[in-house]
Amino acid sequence: MASTEGNKLWGGRFVGDTDPIMERFNASIAYDKRMWDADIRGSKAYVKALEKTKLVTTDEMNQISQGLDQISEEWSKSAFVIKPGDEDIHTANERRLKELIGAPAGKLHTGRSRNDQVVTDMRLWLRDAITTLTDNALQLMSTMVERAAAEIDVLFPGYTHMQRAQPIRWSHWILSHAVALSRDVDRLQEIKKRVNVLPLGSGAIAGTPFDIDRELLRKELEFDGISINSMDATGQRDFVAEFLFWASLCLTHLSKMAEDLMLYSTKEFSFISLSDAYSTGSSLMPQKKNADSLELIRSKAGRVFGSCAGFMMTLKGLPSTYNKDLQEDKEAMFDCYDTVHAVLQVTTGVMSTLKINQSVMQAALSPDMLATDLAYYLVRQGVPFREAHGISGKAVFAAESKNVALNQLTVEDLSALSPLFGSDVSSVWDYSSSVEQYQAPGGTAKSSVSAQVDHLRDWLKKQTQ
Amino acid sequence: MASTEGNKLWGGRFVGDTDPIMERFNASIAYDKRMWDADIRGSKAYVKALEKTKLVTTDEMNQISQGLDQISEEWSKSAFVIKPGDEDIHTANERRLKELIGAPAGKLHTGRSRNDQVVTDMRLWLRDAITTLTDNALQLMSTMVERAAAEIDVLFPGYTHMQRAQPIRWSHWILSHAVALSRDVDRLQEIKKRVNVLPLGSGAIAGTPFDIDRELLRKELEFDGISINSMDATGQRDFVAEFLFWASLCLTHLSKMAEDLMLYSTKEFSFISLSDAYSTGSSLMPQKKNADSLELIRSKAGRVFGSCAGFMMTLKGLPSTYNKDLQEDKEAMFDCYDTVHAVLQVTTGVMSTLKINQSVMQAALSPDMLATDLAYYLVRQGVPFREAHGISGKAVFAAESKNVALNQLTVEDLSALSPLFGSDVSSVWDYSSSVEQYQAPGGTAKSSVSAQVDHLRDWLKKQTQ
Amino acid sequence: MASTEGNKLWGGRFVGDTDPIMERFNASIAYDKRMWDADIRGSKAYVKALEKTKLVTTDEMNQISQGLDQISEEWSKSAFVIKPGDEDIHTANERRLKELIGAPAGKLHTGRSRNDQVVTDMRLWLRDAITTLTDNALQLMSTMVERAAAEIDVLFPGYTHMQRAQPIRWSHWILSHAVALSRDVDRLQEIKKRVNVLPLGSGAIAGTPFDIDRELLRKELEFDGISINSMDATGQRDFVAEFLFWASLCLTHLSKMAEDLMLYSTKEFSFISLSDAYSTGSSLMPQKKNADSLELIRSKAGRVFGSCAGFMMTLKGLPSTYNKDLQEDKEAMFDCYDTVHAVLQVTTGVMSTLKINQSVMQAALSPDMLATDLAYYLVRQGVPFREAHGISGKAVFAAESKNVALNQLTVEDLSALSPLFGSDVSSVWDYSSSVEQYQAPGGTAKSSVSAQVDHLRDWLKKQTQ
Amino acid sequence: MASTEGNKLWGGRFVGDTDPIMERFNASIAYDKRMWDADIRGSKAYVKALEKTKLVTTDEMNQISQGLDQISEEWSKSAFVIKPGDEDIHTANERRLKELIGAPAGKLHTGRSRNDQVVTDMRLWLRDAITTLTDNALQLMSTMVERAAAEIDVLFPGYTHMQRAQPIRWSHWILSHAVALSRDVDRLQEIKKRVNVLPLGSGAIAGTPFDIDRELLRKELEFDGISINSMDATGQRDFVAEFLFWASLCLTHLSKMAEDLMLYSTKEFSFISLSDAYSTGSSLMPQKKNADSLELIRSKAGRVFGSCAGFMMTLKGLPSTYNKDLQEDKEAMFDCYDTVHAVLQVTTGVMSTLKINQSVMQAALSPDMLATDLAYYLVRQGVPFREAHGISGKAVFAAESKNVALNQLTVEDLSALSPLFGSDVSSVWDYSSSVEQYQAPGGTAKSSVSAQVDHLRDWLKKQTQ
Repeated sequence: MASTEGNKLWGGRFVGDTDPIMERFNASIAYDKRMWDADIRGSKAYVKALEKTKLVTTDEMNQISQGLDQISEEWSKSAFVIKPGDEDIHTANERRLKELIGAPAGKLHTGRSRNDQVVTDMRLWLRDAITTLTDNALQLMSTMVERAAAEIDVLFPGYTHMQRAQPIRWSHWILSHAVALSRDVDRLQEIKKRVNVLPLGSGAIAGTPFDIDRELLRKELEFDGISINSMDATGQRDFVAEFLFWASLCLTHLSKMAEDLMLYSTKEFSFISLSDAYSTGSSLMPQKKNADSLELIRSKAGRVFGSCAGFMMTLKGLPSTYNKDLQEDKEAMFDCYDTVHAVLQVTTGVMSTLKINQSVMQAALSPDMLATDLAYYLVRQGVPFREAHGISGKAVFAAESKNVALNQLTVEDLSALSPLFGSDVSSVWDYSSSVEQYQAPGGTAKSSVSAQVDHLRDWLKKQTQ
Repeated sequence: MASTEGNKLWGGRFVGDTDPIMERFNASIAYDKRMWDADIRGSKAYVKALEKTKLVTTDEMNQISQGLDQISEEWSKSAFVIKPGDEDIHTANERRLKELIGAPAGKLHTGRSRNDQVVTDMRLWLRDAITTLTDNALQLMSTMVERAAAEIDVLFPGYTHMQRAQPIRWSHWILSHAVALSRDVDRLQEIKKRVNVLPLGSGAIAGTPFDIDRELLRKELEFDGISINSMDATGQRDFVAEFLFWASLCLTHLSKMAEDLMLYSTKEFSFISLSDAYSTGSSLMPQKKNADSLELIRSKAGRVFGSCAGFMMTLKGLPSTYNKDLQEDKEAMFDCYDTVHAVLQVTTGVMSTLKINQSVMQAALSPDMLATDLAYYLVRQGVPFREAHGISGKAVFAAESKNVALNQLTVEDLSALSPLFGSDVSSVWDYSSSVEQYQAPGGTAKSSVSAQVDHLRDWLKKQTQ
Repeated sequence: MASTEGNKLWGGRFVGDTDPIMERFNASIAYDKRMWDADIRGSKAYVKALEKTKLVTTDEMNQISQGLDQISEEWSKSAFVIKPGDEDIHTANERRLKELIGAPAGKLHTGRSRNDQVVTDMRLWLRDAITTLTDNALQLMSTMVERAAAEIDVLFPGYTHMQRAQPIRWSHWILSHAVALSRDVDRLQEIKKRVNVLPLGSGAIAGTPFDIDRELLRKELEFDGISINSMDATGQRDFVAEFLFWASLCLTHLSKMAEDLMLYSTKEFSFISLSDAYSTGSSLMPQKKNADSLELIRSKAGRVFGSCAGFMMTLKGLPSTYNKDLQEDKEAMFDCYDTVHAVLQVTTGVMSTLKINQSVMQAALSPDMLATDLAYYLVRQGVPFREAHGISGKAVFAAESKNVALNQLTVEDLSALSPLFGSDVSSVWDYSSSVEQYQAPGGTAKSSVSAQVDHLRDWLKKQTQ
Repeated sequence: MASTEGNKLWGGRFVGDTDPIMERFNASIAYDKRMWDADIRGSKAYVKALEKTKLVTTDEMNQISQGLDQISEEWSKSAFVIKPGDEDIHTANERRLKELIGAPAGKLHTGRSRNDQVVTDMRLWLRDAITTLTDNALQLMSTMVERAAAEIDVLFPGYTHMQRAQPIRWSHWILSHAVALSRDVDRLQEIKKRVNVLPLGSGAIAGTPFDIDRELLRKELEFDGISINSMDATGQRDFVAEFLFWASLCLTHLSKMAEDLMLYSTKEFSFISLSDAYSTGSSLMPQKKNADSLELIRSKAGRVFGSCAGFMMTLKGLPSTYNKDLQEDKEAMFDCYDTVHAVLQVTTGVMSTLKINQSVMQAALSPDMLATDLAYYLVRQGVPFREAHGISGKAVFAAESKNVALNQLTVEDLSALSPLFGSDVSSVWDYSSSVEQYQAPGGTAKSSVSAQVDHLRDWLKKQTQ
């Protein structure tokens, strides 16, 4: 049954050899042109390897290389003209090369496939992107660490379950988020290591049949290593999936910090005020000052994780080697980079310009937050903690019943709960002393927070060496 | 501690009142300009309601309305110039209106908030988008149903677990996918019903304080109903989430059909050949003809579900009413529409132009696929099915042992397994008769498949009335 | 190369015919036993259809039916003993039937496949589950609506972007969440309609070869309709995917309400107090009262969406008809039901027992929340809203500069900003009057909120008829 | 308005102080009991630190320690009785300790919070789980590498886009998947490094107020490092999220391998046969042998990614420190471990027992798969690849037109396309020679595949040292 007959029977959307919707659907030039520089660098290295094998002459190599330089200049000046038929950046660059230098251009693709070419381009591009994001993250961390150092004397309530828990240093809060970012940076370096592996020379699936010197390619393109298996090299996109998840976890960290800051910037908490540069007004309500920057930061965790989820779903159950489904890799990678790039910078801006309202923070500390300290008072006199916890709980209840603050219970009130309470119990009601108890590593005492600052400064120094 | 001092202490990314990265991060004009027409339609309706309340005079209404018409013309001619400060389509249109008509433009936003404006625009836009997608889906279904009708006599192997199971009609396979699409269309109409509800008149959160006639707005904008609660109206994006999931499930259906077709178009199966219009070649291997269209279709299920996952994650745990996080709604909605729009059309193209290789399909039917029929032969003589299934299994084993096809076992061979086998067992080995057994509704007999075709033709007719 | 030789060369994990890990991996009885009742009901109906076709005698039918009743009793008394080899509920029940009644048991599966059996069981089970969840949701809504009716006079701040926006009624807030739930219920009924379709009689893939009366099966099992295509019927799990997404969106709504309530129950807001029944203490801090119930509610949105994401990913790219991958459907469905079932009930408990602190709510209203009203004062005198918005913004700034509340600006202060401000401007500073402006449908005026209550009461009544 | 009055007005689900549904909802003992051993180990270390600070006496320490040993024995003998009120494993163990040793049990929790306790338990548990999974993965890899070594001479078609591309070694295919697993193992070791950090001594949020020697705890529990910040230590679950994503990517790899194997085990490909131990039959069709094991492997990628998606969504936007939402961490972690543990073992079983059908594999090689080689024939004579690719494409077309295989074109046929074709072109049509061209690292030539085997054997050796 011929398709032409078929068409008559069940109709068809279009007549002719090509379907313009299919062409657009298939083409990637609209976004993969972003890799023009990586594509040209890859080709310049490749032609050297071809010359070494004598598949191109030295003269041809020079022509190709100069042609590629000219294309590079056109791109960098936004003078490159994409033409119909340029379905992707590789096709576009090779088409242009042919226009510029003629026949030798046809030799550039010898033994190479778009399968190994595209993944080489992506790895080159992502390697640079990771360098930039690392810098962004380090700048944010540095801002946070220095702010923590400068404001180390500010106390405010620490919360768990969004309820006031114990007095802590504001700097302790800042550093809790900086520490999370340090893990993000560590993870990103691990990913970079796996990104930085040369796939070029893997061909479509079987490898390269000519005597292409992959070690030469590696050196030219400054990769750390060479892919081990050609099928894996062209068909895997682990590095993209890893990058997308990395970004998701990193932005989830920032969504947590943003959520805290949004709470702190409500009228009801009033601990901080965002700079106007990171706030916006309302089209209706003249008095509004909204922390849009924080809401945007919070929202982007969803966006990048969506890319991760989408790409993982696309990968699931694919047969091995290159399938066109993999084309979903690039938009996800680019959008993820752009998003994290912006979020890290905006967060740095927010963190460097927000003002704290120290008096409000201090005033938010309340005696009931020292109920644990009251129990510790007894523990230090030998009462098992479980029992002390119970007695302190009764004290909290007694204060509530009398409608007074916990520290306004008299020694008599307390003695009724335990004979071990003496007049020195008043020493418990000091927020500064309370905080200073936590001197073990990781605690909120000044010495411990200073040690965290020192640790992170050292760590930052190592990252940028 | 002032932020300027602060800046000195812990550094800052930028100097000055605004952060250009924050501005770009905050702005949505780059994508929400797509809703220019909906925005203008909404404003034209709104000014009528304002006039009715006397908040604008009839003359002002006419000025505003004509100004909006002019802006509409500029957009439709691609002559509208976006200026710095136009952070979104609403701002851009109002800014332009002021340039065109001056002071009265300032009255348009009376009692309206961007919160109710934006969600009105989105609902108008999505309503149209759903109409288009419905048409696309119906066209695809129609192509499939007519193809099924035309090719109803073609038999081929039905598979479960990717293993040959039972002979079926090719049309039965086609219709199994068409039926799934009919549920998609049903679901989309249900969503449309919920999209088509007017939020305008909800203000920022509390409602509209003027005597705005929401029923007038509803009629002008042809909504089916009016939102019930202003906080919900401005802060919910159920319709976007529903749409994203709808698309995910619909494309998962198409990923299933694409997967089948990819199998069928392997060299090993060779049941079908895609039209060249939906295939591509290889940059390396001259003989390759790849079913890129099918791979793209399959991949897009991941893409749209990624948007759904991302948006759901963004929504999770948000406080009620408008938060800037909701700005993630539009890019997800647009990309989802574009993707499904393209996929449905490409799938229609694929399904209307692919060729089937009927002789190969027929030849792929093998006697072992009738082992169930062999069991049924015994069942019809009163053998319990479990026992008959066992005997038939032994026959399969006997054939394998003798290295012959199942239908080449002699009556003697079979009699050794059950005395009920007689010479009429040969009637079992007829694929056409086998298929004709399945006459109950939903089965693969000709009458049953014809009934499915009729059912779907009727259903399609109803959809387009 | 034989596998035994192979084993010697590359080692193997186990010796023998079966791999116990594979058996456990393959078996579903641990969770699908939950469908024992549905499985028995399905079989009881099926044997009637078999009898009608004479594939079993009336006597055999009765034996089978009575045997099934006995099995049912064993299950309901927790006396059913699962034996090795009972890989799923279908196998277990049939094995037990054979033990009880002998040979006729072997006829029950005639013309049936586990493929149509399992999906029939699932649909029966889910239909009941949906009924229960609908009841749970309606009870929650009813609690909310009645609470809204009872507390209609309570005012408190409405927030956008977590910042105080405009005064609203507490009941308006409650109803904003109830309205979202009404959409959830609507959606669930739509899904139920699609769940309630009979697949039995579809066999493995091709349909049923005997004269099985599917209409009889439909009536016996009280389904609304019959599946259209046997391949689709056995291979699709749309109804599971839809249910998982339904739950995700519903719990996302509750995560939003929980987030609001968590904010309101912080010390800093202090608008509400949870009942002790829905709070927990701390193992360390005696004073803590944590809103664990709200946090659990919020967290479950992630859990059920995770199931949805997982199942969609499993479905993506599967070939059509039954593949073992579909076995992921049941645990997801059960866990989703259990989770939503618990969340809806706990939320009902939280909403019916929480106490509001009306005086704190009232005190949280601040004059700056009336800045929009100040602008409206001018609008009512003919000032274009944009201009009025600007003047009101200047008033806000003036008050901040003078460090007074907005309503403490003198008429002189205001006149300096616009000559239209007169002494009657003082009428603006009344929260009750402000709220009463919003009388249009959906607004926060008393009449409008009452209308919402009436609307939802009517709607609830209709649901339970 | 009191809640009791309230109850009367809007009804309530239950009466009394506790809500049994809330209790079940809140409790985690049903699943976290799995960490009984880790919990006891953690407590045994902790009591040593308490003793060092004199908060417990040496005698008390010994009592506590022996009591814990006894509890450990009870758990290991399944003799531990969970009682009502044992909401989690920590409470259960401490309750039992009190029963066994009385008062001193009350001292064990001094300065410790469930917040640091639970995360310590989880890290101890996961560390062991990772060790097991690493072993499982290495065993699978080892099986694959040795199989690749043994079957290195087997050729078969390499596919891209599911279309025959170029001849490759079967071992090359095996190793492409083994290489992916080696990255999974690398990643898992990186995660282990981050899991293996001690949080104990972080208290609820602020740290530990007593002189607890965290370095002693670290040594006792064999952690590699100590957490830096107490808020981060108790509130972050990066290690769980990382583990869930690790599993998702790993199982996505196995879904890819399973998909290939499913294709290869179709009747149409017939390259491989699964062992019966990893196949199942059909309840309806006697001839069926389904590759259920492969389908289960493929499906689990969705399941674990679902857990990852759910947990990420739960984390998104949480405020910092411990929130009850984090309770979602454990079920996800356990289920993920169980799933990967089973999948890796089943995959090892599948890979060690499947049989290859070498003659079918060989027969599936077809001359058109050498079209690239035909182009290379010309390239080696100086024709630019682009031109050679075009000429070879014409040869493919010519063969199709003549309805002969590509290698059956005569030298005359070929000469018509290019004068460079000589009689030595016949040397192209040799699959073995073709494969031997790919000698560059990563290629499919025998030497190159052997080098991959050697590389992986070395790598495996290093992992187990």
